[in-house]
Amino acid sequence: MTDKEFFKVTSLGAVLELTRTFPCVSEEVLPLDQCVSRILCRDIVSSIDLPEFNRATMDGYAVQARSTFGVSESVPAFLNIVGTVEMGQEPAVPVKAGEAVRIATGGMLPDGADSVVMLEHAQALDEHTLEVFKSAAPLQHVMEIGEDFRNGQKILSKGSRVRPQEMGVLAALGETHVPVYRQPVVTIISSGDEIVPIEQTPGLCQLRDVNAYTLASLVRMSGGVSLYLGIARDNFADLHSLCKNAVGQADMVLISGGSSVGSRDFTLEVIKGLPDAEILVHGVSISPGKPTILARSRQKAIWGLPGQVASAMVVFHVMVRPMLEWIAGVSEDRSGATHEVSAVLSRNLASVQGRDDYVRVRLVRRENRVYAEPILGKSGLISTMVKADGLVRIDMNSEGLVKGTPVRVILF
Amino acid sequence: MTDKEFFKVTSLGAVLELTRTFPCVSEEVLPLDQCVSRILCRDIVSSIDLPEFNRATMDGYAVQARSTFGVSESVPAFLNIVGTVEMGQEPAVPVKAGEAVRIATGGMLPDGADSVVMLEHAQALDEHTLEVFKSAAPLQHVMEIGEDFRNGQKILSKGSRVRPQEMGVLAALGETHVPVYRQPVVTIISSGDEIVPIEQTPGLCQLRDVNAYTLASLVRMSGGVSLYLGIARDNFADLHSLCKNAVGQADMVLISGGSSVGSRDFTLEVIKGLPDAEILVHGVSISPGKPTILARSRQKAIWGLPGQVASAMVVFHVMVRPMLEWIAGVSEDRSGATHEVSAVLSRNLASVQGRDDYVRVRLVRRENRVYAEPILGKSGLISTMVKADGLVRIDMNSEGLVKGTPVRVILF
Repeated sequence: MTDKEFFKVTSLGAVLELTRTFPCVSEEVLPLDQCVSRILCRDIVSSIDLPEFNRATMDGYAVQARSTFGVSESVPAFLNIVGTVEMGQEPAVPVKAGEAVRIATGGMLPDGADSVVMLEHAQALDEHTLEVFKSAAPLQHVMEIGEDFRNGQKILSKGSRVRPQEMGVLAALGETHVPVYRQPVVTIISSGDEIVPIEQTPGLCQLRDVNAYTLASLVRMSGGVSLYLGIARDNFADLHSLCKNAVGQADMVLISGGSSVGSRDFTLEVIKGLPDAEILVHGVSISPGKPTILARSRQKAIWGLPGQVASAMVVFHVMVRPMLEWIAGVSEDRSGATHEVSAVLSRNLASVQGRDDYVRVRLVRRENRVYAEPILGKSGLISTMVKADGLVRIDMNSEGLVKGTPVRVILF
Repeated sequence: MTDKEFFKVTSLGAVLELTRTFPCVSEEVLPLDQCVSRILCRDIVSSIDLPEFNRATMDGYAVQARSTFGVSESVPAFLNIVGTVEMGQEPAVPVKAGEAVRIATGGMLPDGADSVVMLEHAQALDEHTLEVFKSAAPLQHVMEIGEDFRNGQKILSKGSRVRPQEMGVLAALGETHVPVYRQPVVTIISSGDEIVPIEQTPGLCQLRDVNAYTLASLVRMSGGVSLYLGIARDNFADLHSLCKNAVGQADMVLISGGSSVGSRDFTLEVIKGLPDAEILVHGVSISPGKPTILARSRQKAIWGLPGQVASAMVVFHVMVRPMLEWIAGVSEDRSGATHEVSAVLSRNLASVQGRDDYVRVRLVRRENRVYAEPILGKSGLISTMVKADGLVRIDMNSEGLVKGTPVRVILF
């Protein structure tokens, strides 16, 4: 341990720019039912008109709208009922002026018909005679051919996440197999002589391997596949062998532990010994999370995360997750869209200039507003993470934020 | 099809209250690494103090704080360095007045020490002599025994969702196996003579089974397990057999299709024929989604959802998901917390009184505010769901909302 060893810190913005120099994962083709939450690796263009026929969107009678023009409760029209449209079948008869055909929601409009009269606006006097007492506009209660999507239209974009509605569109087009990006594989290594597996009762001065579980969960919830490689002791051979193994099978490696200057140096040394290794970042101007390392080995990203569980989680949310989304192929305009909410700060927050401060907050609703209530407590405490709903950033150029400021909250 | 058959509608609030009469799913015990996103079925009480020893949270020197009282850059203190704390090992020597011991982040404080002097505030003059030029407060850079959690303290609540930080807490306590609620099983049935499987090219007037995919995805994203049973033709025997099968193996059944009065009646008839069947709701005062059915058979919930894909999705978000969370054991104060954001309406929205209107919106960020921009288009169009980020409710007692109103957005 060298006294007063300060490392040169990189700004958060610069770190995020560096993460953009890593390549995206490869592609695969999956059966549609496995595609929820996956990222499309190609634009999807419609090969059909949707719907493919003019469809009724209400129960009622298919008519020519002009047969009803000018009618009212006091001056109704009388139309001849000439048949019924059966679901899933082509209409048996056309609709001429002065005629009506029974139709249900989803039924195909017969030739000649251009409008649907709702049940509520008509009354069958007998099997063959319909009284209509409200005029129907052309295309009323009708979904036209191609109104949802036109043949040849681009409907979904490369880089977008497949939500339930995108699943629906893909199903409607008959896309039984869909080209998506592979899920990034993230290997997780815990390091430190004081760390023991969770099933073991820690001796005095020892700690259970908490980061293995928090980080694996964060990876999974961010769309990655996590692979836990175990605990490396604080010796070069042990950590080097796990890291080499990790780089070989993953798109990204997370090494937690080594927050102290000594073990950080040690982790750095191990990373430098990996194939084609390059240290990109050694220290970031954020709090908590300053002692973070980002390196590259054979196009794979290697993160050295703080050993303190809460700090490691903050670094994950602020830097690792955005990078994971980047290598997963998520298009930039969508990235982060679903895990940030806006709120109003409930009290003043002081901050140190020259670093981005991340403050844990609880979201509290009062009437129609959401307030971000800072949770106090040391950065190493996991209890503050449990109480929190998210993080608020205080910019490095700010001395703090005053009560009432609108803020963005990164949700946990 | 009977003309002018209006059904009696139930208010949304009353429907949600009815869903609370259904029981919660049973419990199971899972290995911790399978517990992410699951719901705890018991309170978790700490069986240890966390941390179990006084820990340094900075690299530096363990000291007695009073050895440094009154020191400054110009009047430093000189302490004797008497050893080093090794990680994961009990300190070999105690710290007396005028002494210091090297310690790294995470190390155990030696007997006698009550504070840590940061590297930045001290300088080793030689192996044995430390110059300290800033006074250290007691407990500075120290995490005390039980500061995170105390032995016997309730730390996680029954009904809460296990996020990455809860995984961390459970790992820290050595909870290798955790009691959680079973994931609700939801069977999905599509109905209608016009519906074909998605791998089939629809004939004229036919439609691919889109709801099977949107509903299964919604169930999965809401924490349920989806089980697709296929397409029932519009005949009693077919739908009845699928429904009986569904009730036998599920906690909840979703039947989509049958938006027309005729097929709705038909679905009702089938549901009434199930064991111990009871129709609870037949029509809800919301738009879209009015023709929704809720029934009970042997404590299992059966939903009859509109056939129009976009309407079925709205009903899911507004009624089915809250119920799914209820039977999954999610405690009420947490329910919905993660899928609603606040925004400001970007334009006026008119509405019909006497029903809750759900309007699809896109979220747009300008500076620090988020605006909800209504997406226009017929309720049956899935393209409007693809463009949307969520739903805004216009209350049944309101004639609309004016531009600038703060609104809650249910995220998709």
